[in-house]
Amino acid sequence: MFVLVNLKAYPCDPVEIGTAAETVAAETGARIAVAPQAADLRAVADTGVETWAQHVSPVEHGSHTGSTLAERAAAAGAEGTLLNHSERRLRLADIDDAVAAAERAGLDTVVCANNPAQVGAVAQLSPDAVAVEPPELIGTGTPVSQADPDVVRAAVDAASEVGDVPVYCGAGISTGDDVAAARDLGAEGVLLASGVAKADDPEAALRDLVTDL
Amino acid sequence: MFVLVNLKAYPCDPVEIGTAAETVAAETGARIAVAPQAADLRAVADTGVETWAQHVSPVEHGSHTGSTLAERAAAAGAEGTLLNHSERRLRLADIDDAVAAAERAGLDTVVCANNPAQVGAVAQLSPDAVAVEPPELIGTGTPVSQADPDVVRAAVDAASEVGDVPVYCGAGISTGDDVAAARDLGAEGVLLASGVAKADDPEAALRDLVTDL
Amino acid sequence: MFVLVNLKAYPCDPVEIGTAAETVAAETGARIAVAPQAADLRAVADTGVETWAQHVSPVEHGSHTGSTLAERAAAAGAEGTLLNHSERRLRLADIDDAVAAAERAGLDTVVCANNPAQVGAVAQLSPDAVAVEPPELIGTGTPVSQADPDVVRAAVDAASEVGDVPVYCGAGISTGDDVAAARDLGAEGVLLASGVAKADDPEAALRDLVTDL
Amino acid sequence: MFVLVNLKAYPCDPVEIGTAAETVAAETGARIAVAPQAADLRAVADTGVETWAQHVSPVEHGSHTGSTLAERAAAAGAEGTLLNHSERRLRLADIDDAVAAAERAGLDTVVCANNPAQVGAVAQLSPDAVAVEPPELIGTGTPVSQADPDVVRAAVDAASEVGDVPVYCGAGISTGDDVAAARDLGAEGVLLASGVAKADDPEAALRDLVTDL
Repeated sequence: MFVLVNLKAYPCDPVEIGTAAETVAAETGARIAVAPQAADLRAVADTGVETWAQHVSPVEHGSHTGSTLAERAAAAGAEGTLLNHSERRLRLADIDDAVAAAERAGLDTVVCANNPAQVGAVAQLSPDAVAVEPPELIGTGTPVSQADPDVVRAAVDAASEVGDVPVYCGAGISTGDDVAAARDLGAEGVLLASGVAKADDPEAALRDLVTDL
Repeated sequence: MFVLVNLKAYPCDPVEIGTAAETVAAETGARIAVAPQAADLRAVADTGVETWAQHVSPVEHGSHTGSTLAERAAAAGAEGTLLNHSERRLRLADIDDAVAAAERAGLDTVVCANNPAQVGAVAQLSPDAVAVEPPELIGTGTPVSQADPDVVRAAVDAASEVGDVPVYCGAGISTGDDVAAARDLGAEGVLLASGVAKADDPEAALRDLVTDL
Repeated sequence: MFVLVNLKAYPCDPVEIGTAAETVAAETGARIAVAPQAADLRAVADTGVETWAQHVSPVEHGSHTGSTLAERAAAAGAEGTLLNHSERRLRLADIDDAVAAAERAGLDTVVCANNPAQVGAVAQLSPDAVAVEPPELIGTGTPVSQADPDVVRAAVDAASEVGDVPVYCGAGISTGDDVAAARDLGAEGVLLASGVAKADDPEAALRDLVTDL
Repeated sequence: MFVLVNLKAYPCDPVEIGTAAETVAAETGARIAVAPQAADLRAVADTGVETWAQHVSPVEHGSHTGSTLAERAAAAGAEGTLLNHSERRLRLADIDDAVAAAERAGLDTVVCANNPAQVGAVAQLSPDAVAVEPPELIGTGTPVSQADPDVVRAAVDAASEVGDVPVYCGAGISTGDDVAAARDLGAEGVLLASGVAKADDPEAALRDLVTDL
């Protein structure tokens, strides 16, 4: 199971969380990555943790003021990128171009989707993985694996019909039990955010998440 | 073969073109529809021609100033709608919601896509048809069936792998030969715009398009 | 006082409201306009009421699928258009271009803004009028003239410093008292929506609104 | 005169240009800043040069995946930010919120605008400076001060009517003569990009720019 921690624009210390994630990953052998904002990629990558971008722009080098070029995210230490998060939804053609941009720069991609039909759609664009996150569950603390396990199963089916695309499970994940439940439904990873980024003790929260993997 | 004429924001007379299309459709038995702007839906529908919207908003009734609600497009006489045209690209989640909105209002849907991978993606969202239009060919007068026939074949394959979704072929169509070539590649319809909307004699242009169907 | 009724995408009958507004305007001499969606412009204009668009696109004739060209809104009977409503916020450069588009087509313009600073900003772009609508009050039934009269006064000051630009007052208006309060604060018109569009008896609601003008 | 070098998404080495700018600034006493992408802010700031962001998001801390929070840009070393560049145009309300976000984080702001009317508009939102950049001149090598000096004069007038807002001049600046011409028209700074970022010798290009200040 891959545990990907999205720091969003939360008022946390990205280096503290990067360090905690690196410590827990080293101790347990679990794969944990942290996705800070673009401006924090370098500082987080310097902790040694696997570092992901939250978004890259669907463009190549050129006149694109204010973009986040995949090449510069990679140069700052990113190894992968989220795309089409429900808080940063992209046009279909831009998902296609952003996956291509990430690939060009050597970044892994996880493309988010709201439901199984959209999982099937984004799987067609050859990302490295897809994530299913029903928007109504994000930030609720109720994991999708519990609120609506059929969504996860249907997403896994939709992705496997298109190809051999791993499905991650997001929205409401905060405990090791949630991670285990996601795994049992066929997910190969989880996306989470507030469960770690807003925890009083992010290291303890991470240790709990991966304890049974 | 379905011939769908997109009037875009061209400086043409939508009623004149609607009337011409209705005349040619009645004479030849061909299925021809005209897609004017929202403000012209009613006037075009009053000509008796099959009338389509160029876009509907991915929303339900509510506080959506400046939207084009599917229900109101239908009330004005539309029978279908284009979605995600390359000049009006939508976020993936909004394509999903707009297809649902159109269905709710009884409108047929044709979702546009730039390439076969995107055709496969939008086919997952259960539209009534998909259209492949390589952006670099739009408005060129070089039909995709001639410039890049493999794109059409690959689009037909991508759509049929997902389900039984008809593929229409856009970009550069202007003659009956282009329509026949699209049909021979597996397309079940064509999208065109300037070839009719900017023609000196739209009726003659339409008659030429459907002459061999 | 100008009373502009925005029908948004509410589940109302635009022709019924257009007819009611025309009746009350004719009886009382008040200036009342109705702004339906683009697809309903023609049907509403046919009632004889002053008809406005909710939005026009910042473009000229051309390849703009899914746009609402100012010229076509005018051809369908619109005499003016809202722009930059809080539910359809525009980029600054697009407000500039949309005001120009409306002018080109002979449409009056009311550009919306959230607060007095933004009122000053949009007044610089030479619209026919500006409207101040604090987003937090829209649809609440609490009129801005009561919740925060200083916002209206400051908006009037901001607009008059830039030029002789009339200020309309939106958000929460539903009674004749609200209209009178807006007038006493320096507004020359009101924008309202649910107060009429969701009223059991739109004609009675309109009559109440203009009773003391 | 303030010289602000926007690196856009050009294929340059941001640290090399940062170092060159710091060298020339130290030697000549000129004020020169470099604006890299968000992912490069920290590396550029580490050169000691005045570092600016190309954009910050109009948001506060929260669930904003893929945003560039002003606080994180500042934490990475930024001292200011461009906003509403013609390649990253913002909605009017978002310019207002982004100026507030930047202020909150202690960042200076330069808000871009296409023409004098838009300069007047953005000046109403209390940025630290405005920049006038006619889009048709960006990247041409023809400076606005030469192609259309009246635009610069009118922008300076528009900004000074609103308040004491400095005007910078962008588009087509590449030589010291262009900078001097901008100054003579009333500008207090220049924005440039390709003239330095694509120069064979960025340090020499910068030295030429500030030679007569």
